[in-house]
Amino acid sequence: MRLALIAAGLLAAAPALADPLPSWNDTETKSRIIAFVESVTDPSADTFVPVKDRIATFDNDGNLWAEQPVYFQLIFAIDRVAELAKADPSIAQSEAMKAAAAQDYKAVLASGEDGLIEVLAAAHTGVDTETFIESAADWLATARHPQTGLLYKEMTYQPMVELLRYLRDEDFQTFIVSGGGIHFVRAYAEEAYGIPPQNVVGTQTVTTYETAEDGTPRIIKQPEIFFIDDKAGKPVGIDNHIGKRPILASGNSDGDFAMLEYTTAGEGPRLGILLHHTDAEREFAYDREGHVGVLNRGLDEAEARGWLVIDMARDWGRIYTGKPKDAE
Amino acid sequence: MRLALIAAGLLAAAPALADPLPSWNDTETKSRIIAFVESVTDPSADTFVPVKDRIATFDNDGNLWAEQPVYFQLIFAIDRVAELAKADPSIAQSEAMKAAAAQDYKAVLASGEDGLIEVLAAAHTGVDTETFIESAADWLATARHPQTGLLYKEMTYQPMVELLRYLRDEDFQTFIVSGGGIHFVRAYAEEAYGIPPQNVVGTQTVTTYETAEDGTPRIIKQPEIFFIDDKAGKPVGIDNHIGKRPILASGNSDGDFAMLEYTTAGEGPRLGILLHHTDAEREFAYDREGHVGVLNRGLDEAEARGWLVIDMARDWGRIYTGKPKDAE
Repeated sequence: MRLALIAAGLLAAAPALADPLPSWNDTETKSRIIAFVESVTDPSADTFVPVKDRIATFDNDGNLWAEQPVYFQLIFAIDRVAELAKADPSIAQSEAMKAAAAQDYKAVLASGEDGLIEVLAAAHTGVDTETFIESAADWLATARHPQTGLLYKEMTYQPMVELLRYLRDEDFQTFIVSGGGIHFVRAYAEEAYGIPPQNVVGTQTVTTYETAEDGTPRIIKQPEIFFIDDKAGKPVGIDNHIGKRPILASGNSDGDFAMLEYTTAGEGPRLGILLHHTDAEREFAYDREGHVGVLNRGLDEAEARGWLVIDMARDWGRIYTGKPKDAE
Repeated sequence: MRLALIAAGLLAAAPALADPLPSWNDTETKSRIIAFVESVTDPSADTFVPVKDRIATFDNDGNLWAEQPVYFQLIFAIDRVAELAKADPSIAQSEAMKAAAAQDYKAVLASGEDGLIEVLAAAHTGVDTETFIESAADWLATARHPQTGLLYKEMTYQPMVELLRYLRDEDFQTFIVSGGGIHFVRAYAEEAYGIPPQNVVGTQTVTTYETAEDGTPRIIKQPEIFFIDDKAGKPVGIDNHIGKRPILASGNSDGDFAMLEYTTAGEGPRLGILLHHTDAEREFAYDREGHVGVLNRGLDEAEARGWLVIDMARDWGRIYTGKPKDAE
C-alpha cells in the first residue's frame, strides 16, 4: 500500500518533470521562457493570466520556418507562373514574367520590386481560395529546398513547434501573424504547426464573392492588395483578427518590431521574443543586412525593452523538423 | 448492487435525455436542428463532420438580439455624439449632428444615409479600440430599450443563446458574422453569447497603429470604412477571418443571403437557417418592408434551397434573456 502511494505520487509529479522543450539547450533562454509560462499559469501568483487572455502571436518566415535564400512563397509563385506559362505562354511578356516562366529565380529577384509584385500577382490571382490552397499544398508536398534537399515544410523549426505545443498545453491560443499571404500559410499551418486557418493572420489580396458557371459560389483572389500584414500592419492585423493585445509575441526581423512593441506595452506580464539567426553551419547566419529578415532596431533595443533574444546556435539543440541530407 | 447498476445506467443516459434547447417549442424546426447536429457528430454516420470543420456562423442584429426600432449600435452612436457634443458643442454643425446632439433619434434617421454615416463616423472615430470597447460596454451596462425597458443586451434571444451553447457542447466553433461594427459587437459578445473577440467578424473602419504621448502604442479608429461585412461581404469576411466554409449559417435578412448560399453550397451536410420575425406580441413582426432586417429573397427561395425558417411566434417558447416589464 505504501509503495502504491509512492508510485501514485511519482506518476502525478511526472508531467511537471517532463521537459516541454526537449530540442532547446539548457540555457537561460529556455529557463526564461519556462519561467514566463509558469508565472502566468500559476493561479496563486500575482502574475496569473486567465485562459481567455493567453494569446500568443508568431511571425512565420524566418521564425517558424526558414526564409533563405528567399521567402519560400516567392519560390512557389515563380514555380506557379512557370506552370501557368506552360499552358499559356502569352502571359510571359515582361522580363520578370519571362524569368519566372524559365524558373530563373535570380533573374526574378534582379527584376526589382515591380517585377516581384507582377510575378506574385500573376501567381495569386484569378483563382478561388479553396483551389489556391490546394495548389499551394500540392507544391509544398513535393518542392524541395535547393541547399538542404528538404521539403520546404520540413524546414520548420523543431524548437518552435515544441514551443507552440507547450503554450497550447498551457491553454494559450497560438496565432500566426505573417507578412506572407494568408492563404499560402493556411495551406500548411495546421499540419506543420497545429495552427488552424482561423488562427492565421497574413497579407491579403482583395477577394470577391462570385458564382461560377457550375453554380457554386466561391471566393476569388484578385490582383489588388487588400491588407499588408507587416510592420505597423501586424498590430492592426492582430486587432482585426484577434481583438486582444497578446501577452507573448515572437518574431525575427524588424518587420516584427511593432508587434513586439504593441504586445509588451500591455499591462501585466508580457514576453517579447526575437530569433537571432546566428547559425551559419546548421541554418543561415544573417541579421543587419540582406533582402530578407533584416534585424537592426530589434537587436539595438531588445535588451533595454526586456525582450528575449534567441541565439539559434547557442540555444537550439536541433533546427529543422526534417533531417537535412548532410546530417544523414 | 442491482439497483446501483440501474442507477448508474440511468445517470449515463441522462445527458442524451436532457433537452439542449429548452426555450424552443417542440416543433419540426427544433427537431430538424437537433437531427442536423446529431447527423454531423455521429462518428458512425456517413454525414459525420470532423471537429475541426464544425464551423457555425451567426448574423447578430435581428438574429441573436433584437434590431427594432433601429440597430442598437445606431442608438449608441447617437448617445455618444450627444455626449461628445456636451464637451465640444462645435461638433454639431450639420442637421444630422445637431439631431444626434439632441438625441432626436427620428430626426437622425430622417437625415438620410449621408447623415447616418456622419453620425456613425463621429461616434466611432479618433479613439483607440480598447477605449472604444470600454465606452460601448459602459453604454450597454445602462442603456435601456424605450419599449421593453430592458437593457439592450438583455434583448438577446434566449433560444439562440441555447443554440450557440448546444453547438459548442457538440464541439462546434461558433462565430458572429455581423454587418455591425466589429469592435461594438466585441464589447458584449463574450458576456452575452459566450463568443470571444477572435470569433467576431464585422464591419471595420480603417485603423492605424500609433504611439500616444504616454508612450503606449494603440490601435486608433479612423473615419474611413475598411470593410463592409454585409451581403457578399459576409462570405468574404468568413474567408478572411475563418478560412473555411461553414457547415451551418444562421441569419434573418437578405443581408445574410450570400452567407447562407455560400455555406450550403459546400459538399456534405450543411444547414442554412433564417429567423422570421413573426411575433408582434412578444417581439416585432416584420419581413419584406422596412429600414432594418428586410427579408425578401430569403423567404422566396428558402424552401427550394432547403433552408430552415424559424417562425418566431410558433417555434420559440421564450424570446429574450431578460424579462420584459409587461411580463412581470
